[in-house]
Amino acid sequence: MTGAVIPPGATLGMLGGGQLGRMTALAAARLGYRTHVFTPEPDSPCAQVCAEATVADFADRAALAAFAASVDVVTLEWENVPPETVDALGGMVPVRPGADVLRVTRDRLAEKAFVNRLGIETAPWRPARSAADVAAALDELGRPGVLKVARLGYDGKGQTLLGADGDPAEAWAGLAGGHALDAVVEGFVEFACEVSVIVARGPDGAMRAYPAVENQHEHHILARTIVPARVSPAVAARAEDVALRITEALGVVGLLAVEMFVTGDGRVLVNELAPRPHNSGHWTLDACATSQFEQLVRAVCGLPLGPTGRLADCVMENLIGDGIERWPALVADPAARLHLYGKREVRPGRKMGHVTWMGPTPVIGPKLFCHDGHN
Amino acid sequence: MTGAVIPPGATLGMLGGGQLGRMTALAAARLGYRTHVFTPEPDSPCAQVCAEATVADFADRAALAAFAASVDVVTLEWENVPPETVDALGGMVPVRPGADVLRVTRDRLAEKAFVNRLGIETAPWRPARSAADVAAALDELGRPGVLKVARLGYDGKGQTLLGADGDPAEAWAGLAGGHALDAVVEGFVEFACEVSVIVARGPDGAMRAYPAVENQHEHHILARTIVPARVSPAVAARAEDVALRITEALGVVGLLAVEMFVTGDGRVLVNELAPRPHNSGHWTLDACATSQFEQLVRAVCGLPLGPTGRLADCVMENLIGDGIERWPALVADPAARLHLYGKREVRPGRKMGHVTWMGPTPVIGPKLFCHDGHN
Repeated sequence: MTGAVIPPGATLGMLGGGQLGRMTALAAARLGYRTHVFTPEPDSPCAQVCAEATVADFADRAALAAFAASVDVVTLEWENVPPETVDALGGMVPVRPGADVLRVTRDRLAEKAFVNRLGIETAPWRPARSAADVAAALDELGRPGVLKVARLGYDGKGQTLLGADGDPAEAWAGLAGGHALDAVVEGFVEFACEVSVIVARGPDGAMRAYPAVENQHEHHILARTIVPARVSPAVAARAEDVALRITEALGVVGLLAVEMFVTGDGRVLVNELAPRPHNSGHWTLDACATSQFEQLVRAVCGLPLGPTGRLADCVMENLIGDGIERWPALVADPAARLHLYGKREVRPGRKMGHVTWMGPTPVIGPKLFCHDGHN
Repeated sequence: MTGAVIPPGATLGMLGGGQLGRMTALAAARLGYRTHVFTPEPDSPCAQVCAEATVADFADRAALAAFAASVDVVTLEWENVPPETVDALGGMVPVRPGADVLRVTRDRLAEKAFVNRLGIETAPWRPARSAADVAAALDELGRPGVLKVARLGYDGKGQTLLGADGDPAEAWAGLAGGHALDAVVEGFVEFACEVSVIVARGPDGAMRAYPAVENQHEHHILARTIVPARVSPAVAARAEDVALRITEALGVVGLLAVEMFVTGDGRVLVNELAPRPHNSGHWTLDACATSQFEQLVRAVCGLPLGPTGRLADCVMENLIGDGIERWPALVADPAARLHLYGKREVRPGRKMGHVTWMGPTPVIGPKLFCHDGHN
C-alpha cells in the first residue's frame, strides 16, 4: 500500500456542507473518524453531524490554513469547489481526489475530451464560445442539440435544448448574457436508458465498482434509481468496465461516479463524471455491506475497500421540494428506508431526502420505463 | 395516537455523551432530526456527531433551562442521570422515558420488587443496609451469594462475590467504606445462559420487541451477543413476553432492555433492566431494518415503530480496552461490520467499539457456549 494509512480517530476534512457531506460524515463517525466541514453555508446539513465546522468563504485563506491544520485528509462533496481553494489546501494536507481530477471533471469540455482520448464514446459534441459556434455545431451534429455551459451547471441548470426551430443566437444570449463563456453543444442521442456506475479507488490503486444502476430523471433532476439496471449482463459489464477505466486513467483517489447513456443496440456513451458520492449511489446505504459514503472514507484514508455487491434489489426515490411532505407515510412503511437531510427550508427542486424501497424491482411498475427528458 | 408527533427537523435532547448517545444521534440524523447532547464530558463521543452540545454538570440549573428551551423532547443514554436533573427538565420539556421509570430502574431494590410484584421471577434476593443484613441474607439464601450496591453499579463495579469463605463484614466494609449504603444480596442462580430482549414503546402504548439474544460476559463486561439466542422457541417467547409485560407495566416511552437468566429447565429470571439503548442491541444496526437507536428516536418522537425482525443471524463482539488494536484486521474482513466510538483514550475495560459478524451463528464455535462468570 502506498501512502500512510490514516487511522480511525483522525479527522476528515470535508469541502461542502450538503447532504453528500452529511452522509459521508455519518459513515466516517461509524468508523471512529471525526469530520470537520468547511462550507460557506451556516447550519448546513453536514455541520449538524460534524465534530467541527468552519463557516467561511472558499477564498478565505486564513480559514483554509486553520482548516488544513486541523484535519488529516481533505475530501469534497462538490466538484465545483474553486480550483484555487483546492490548490491552496493541497500544499498543506492531502486532498483526495486531487486538483488534477477536479480540473478535468469541473469542465465539460475537458471531461469529454479526456473520455474520448481513452477511446470511450460520448454523445457527439463540439466546443462553443459564440453563437456562431453553436450554429456551426448544430449544422454538423444535426438537431435537436443541447447547449450546455462547460462549468458550474447542475440539475439541468445552464442548459438549453435547441429543437428544429431553436435560434442559436437567442440560446447563446440566454446562457452567456453578454459575457465570455465556454460551452458545449451535444448532439442528440436516442437512448434506451441511463445508467451509472460508482467506482472507489484507494491510494494504492485498488478499485471496486458498485453494480450498474438505472437512473430516471424528471425535470432534469434524478427522480429514482433502479437497482440493478434493467440491462443485459453484457451491457452492465461494459458500463462497469468503462467506469473502471476512466477512474484509473484519472488517477482518482476517492469515488468517481460515471453517468452513461445506453442505446437500443447496447452501446454505452459517457454523459458525465462526478468525483464524489453520487445521488445514484444512495441505495448503497441500505442494500450494500459498505455504502458509497463509507467507501469514500475508506478510500481517502487508505483503508481496504469494502464489498460492493448488492444484498437486495431496491429502488431509490428522491424526495424533492414538497415531496418531503410524504414523510409520515414513508416512515410508517416497513418496506421503505427513509433518509432526511435536515434542511429547514423547502424549495422547489431542492433535494430534501430520499427513500429506498427494498424488494424486487417490479415495485416501480412498467410505466416508469419510459423517459421524458434528455439530461 | 396520544401526544403530538415530534416531526423530523425537531431537536432531540440527549442526556449523557457516550457511545449509546452517539449511535442514537447518528440514527436521529438519518431521519432528519438534530441532536443536542447534555453531558459533563468535554468532546464526548456523542458531541462529535451532534448539532449542539452543552458541556455542564447535571446539577447546573441554568444550563438545564437553556438546554430544555432548545430541544423538543429529551431522552437519555444513562439511567443514572440524577433524579433532580430529570425532575427539573420534566417541568420544562417531555422527558422520555420519564422520572417514574428511572426511579425504578436506577435502584436494584425497587427494580426487583417491581418485577416480582408482576409475578415475574428474579434470582432470590434480600435488601441489605449493614454487614449483619448481609450475613442474615446469606444464611437464608445460601452461598455463594453476590452483594451489589443498589445504585450506580455497572459492568461489575460495586459487586462482591461471597463464596464459602467470604466474610460479610469485610465485603460490606469494602463496598460501603463506612458510609450508609443501600445494597442487595442475590442468591446464586445456576443458569444455562443469559439472554436479553429490548422492547420499544411509543407514547400511544404501541410496543415492538426485538428477538431474544444471548449474551456472554467476560470479567463482568458483555463480551459478545449471539443472534438469535440458542434457546428453544418456547424460552425465547417467554423471554419476549416477560420483557413486554415489564415495559408496559413501567409505562416506558422509549426503550427498555431486559436482561434475563435462563435455567436448564427453561425458567426465565430477570436480572436487570435498562431504560435506554443496550449493548446487547448493537447488532440491530447491521441486521435489522430499524436499529434500536432509530427505534428509540421513533418511540420518543411518537413516530410509528419500525420492524424488529432480524434479517440475518449474527454475532456482536465488543472491542474492549486494547481490543481496539484489532481494527486493521476487522476493517479488512468483508464479514465484519466495524463500529468505533471516537474515544481518544484507551483504558482497560473501556468499550472502544464493536464489530458485528454477519453469518450463521456457528461462526463463534462451540466453546463459547460455556460461561465463566456470574453477572
